[in-house]
Amino acid sequence: MSHPPEMAAQDHPTGVTAAAGFRAAGVTAGLKTSGAPDLALVVNDGPEHVAAAVLTTNRIQAAPVLWTRQAVADGQARAVVLNSGGANACTGAPGFQNTHTTAERTATLLTAAGEEIGPIDVLVCSTGLIGEQLDMAALLPGLDQAVAALDPGAGHDAAVAIMTTDTVAKQAAVTRTAGGSAWTVGGMAKGAGMLAPAMATMLSVITTDAVLTPDVAREALQAATSRTFDRIDSDGCMSTNDTVILLASGASGIAPGAEEFTAALTEVCSSLSQQLLTDAEGASHDIAVEVRGASSETAALAVARAITRSNLVKTAIFGNDPNWGRILASAGTVPAEIAPYEPHEVDVSVNGVLVCRAGGVGEDRSLVDLAAAREVSIQVDLHAGDATATVWTNDLTHDYVHENSAYST
Amino acid sequence: MSHPPEMAAQDHPTGVTAAAGFRAAGVTAGLKTSGAPDLALVVNDGPEHVAAAVLTTNRIQAAPVLWTRQAVADGQARAVVLNSGGANACTGAPGFQNTHTTAERTATLLTAAGEEIGPIDVLVCSTGLIGEQLDMAALLPGLDQAVAALDPGAGHDAAVAIMTTDTVAKQAAVTRTAGGSAWTVGGMAKGAGMLAPAMATMLSVITTDAVLTPDVAREALQAATSRTFDRIDSDGCMSTNDTVILLASGASGIAPGAEEFTAALTEVCSSLSQQLLTDAEGASHDIAVEVRGASSETAALAVARAITRSNLVKTAIFGNDPNWGRILASAGTVPAEIAPYEPHEVDVSVNGVLVCRAGGVGEDRSLVDLAAAREVSIQVDLHAGDATATVWTNDLTHDYVHENSAYST
Repeated sequence: MSHPPEMAAQDHPTGVTAAAGFRAAGVTAGLKTSGAPDLALVVNDGPEHVAAAVLTTNRIQAAPVLWTRQAVADGQARAVVLNSGGANACTGAPGFQNTHTTAERTATLLTAAGEEIGPIDVLVCSTGLIGEQLDMAALLPGLDQAVAALDPGAGHDAAVAIMTTDTVAKQAAVTRTAGGSAWTVGGMAKGAGMLAPAMATMLSVITTDAVLTPDVAREALQAATSRTFDRIDSDGCMSTNDTVILLASGASGIAPGAEEFTAALTEVCSSLSQQLLTDAEGASHDIAVEVRGASSETAALAVARAITRSNLVKTAIFGNDPNWGRILASAGTVPAEIAPYEPHEVDVSVNGVLVCRAGGVGEDRSLVDLAAAREVSIQVDLHAGDATATVWTNDLTHDYVHENSAYST
Repeated sequence: MSHPPEMAAQDHPTGVTAAAGFRAAGVTAGLKTSGAPDLALVVNDGPEHVAAAVLTTNRIQAAPVLWTRQAVADGQARAVVLNSGGANACTGAPGFQNTHTTAERTATLLTAAGEEIGPIDVLVCSTGLIGEQLDMAALLPGLDQAVAALDPGAGHDAAVAIMTTDTVAKQAAVTRTAGGSAWTVGGMAKGAGMLAPAMATMLSVITTDAVLTPDVAREALQAATSRTFDRIDSDGCMSTNDTVILLASGASGIAPGAEEFTAALTEVCSSLSQQLLTDAEGASHDIAVEVRGASSETAALAVARAITRSNLVKTAIFGNDPNWGRILASAGTVPAEIAPYEPHEVDVSVNGVLVCRAGGVGEDRSLVDLAAAREVSIQVDLHAGDATATVWTNDLTHDYVHENSAYST
């Protein structure tokens, strides 16, 4: 993907409430010791209640992931509850019971305030430390607060309430006009570390007022996330709680084509994933690794991921050092059966300077200026085909070590 | 492997000259800008000249690796030349020519000083920055010095000359007695970072005066390295230059059984690899990750490697935080077809405290004391079989980031 327009996020500050048919809330239940907001609620007022989700592929799955997988299986959902201040992962049967209770209580409260809905219509997301039970004595009264605070303009409050080590709330939205009327896709996300392929410890809720079938919603979400969230890799780690949810209200009355909708959804996901990358824990550089000339997209992705996961490449970039030897050595770890190429044909450019030509020394590395900008471009040409893929990562910094060694203590 | 006896290194400080039939040298050729020793030579005076090597599996291979692979193919070698101050990797045809010239010059000098040998009997190793040509105007006169300095007691000099960011020289030796006579295995190694499965940027030369066939030498080296060097993983990165060489002189006149020899060789490799781990760049903890109860050794290894490669586990240990959630989440990234197990049956102990029982909360994590000792023990029981494997790694520290962001500048 190319670097997405930064405007998307600015133009539509209301995120999950940018589209018609949605209300949201973000409140302080007391799950975080800091006293910061920690409970968010997003409600789809319809008329339709189509839903889809992409969930972590980690085999260790948090209770809310197990719940949401079942709850969204019918392609329908009315609401999403999200808490920070605790991941509810590795918490066994009591943890699952707590997720179930959360969904049940939310359904009861929303039923009392409007039309009848069941717990199975409520999706749940959690984020925070693994291996501790949620403080339900704080969470349940927090749900009362959240339902009372629901508002069609409160998207930002919800985005704030799901933050953990994030330094800024992340929102994006795009609107498409069609013959005088319009439909919108908007969303929020959290996650400032542990981003990885297959989406590690990030939560995102995206809403739209387009009219969608459950099949289109599911396929569009799969396509959009595989090219955006799944191609940012902050530290190669994959979490137990990753969740991206799409809710469609149909409130615009417009049913865009699947391709058109997927494009708009991808734009929102792309903006959100770039915001996650830019806010990654302790990072000082965003690094785009583009692999060209691969025999297949799979090959290009494998080489790009090998480079983005190298601590030696990431520390070199932190040191403003265009160390192409480390880049090449990382590419060399990908088996030939996955990415066929000839080592003596590979070119590497860093910020446009061809520092490695045909597997050997190229332009003078001192021509590369890495200190000037946060964004760094690494281009690798395998000269083995026409396929291309780009994966984004961050540099490995002192602040990363600090934030991740101090997180739970 | 269990933690090897530390004594091995202390008892036999002469490393590659501990066994009979070997001379070594370590001199300053001027390849390092620091003026530290940078050229080592190990010569096998026989009567036999059996040799074997295990080389990096990285597809980007340095010129000396390409050379050594060919030169050792006949199972024979007379000498090993090793330089620090330049990896001679990604240096194209001129780089390969420089390796060839080094072997040729060494053969000529050794022939002048004794019996005739050819360049193909000289193995070559290089370590240092990738992508720069060696300074042959310094290296070739250095070879004259090295040949002149050859001595049966100069193993330590050689071990010093191959250091890069290592803070100490690494040597080990063991002697076995057999009916009044004895045979010895001794060796040296360098490498203080980039250690990884398939042996990243580490060089090691091991010598023995046992009588070995080329087949036994090759098989024993493969077996010993696969359970030692290949099971330390400092930062998951694999280099272009990794080489472990075994030379056998037969000078003891004793031909141990293959199993007995492999055991002694494994002991030396184990000591050397532990020394590498302990000296890893910027590390403050050595972490042994033992996976038990796996369905196969492959499964146990895959889970252990996933844990040792997690930056989040490594930063947690740096912060003296027994964050078992990160350990479990790393284990969860291994596909079920590689390592079948049930997430809700997994136990995790840190320094003997069962912090995670049956996939959930176990003993109080505050019972774990990580600050007391450098060595940390992580035990994961998958409850899926009888296989076990241990992989060693280091914590991820500020000093790691510092040393690796400043290495080439």
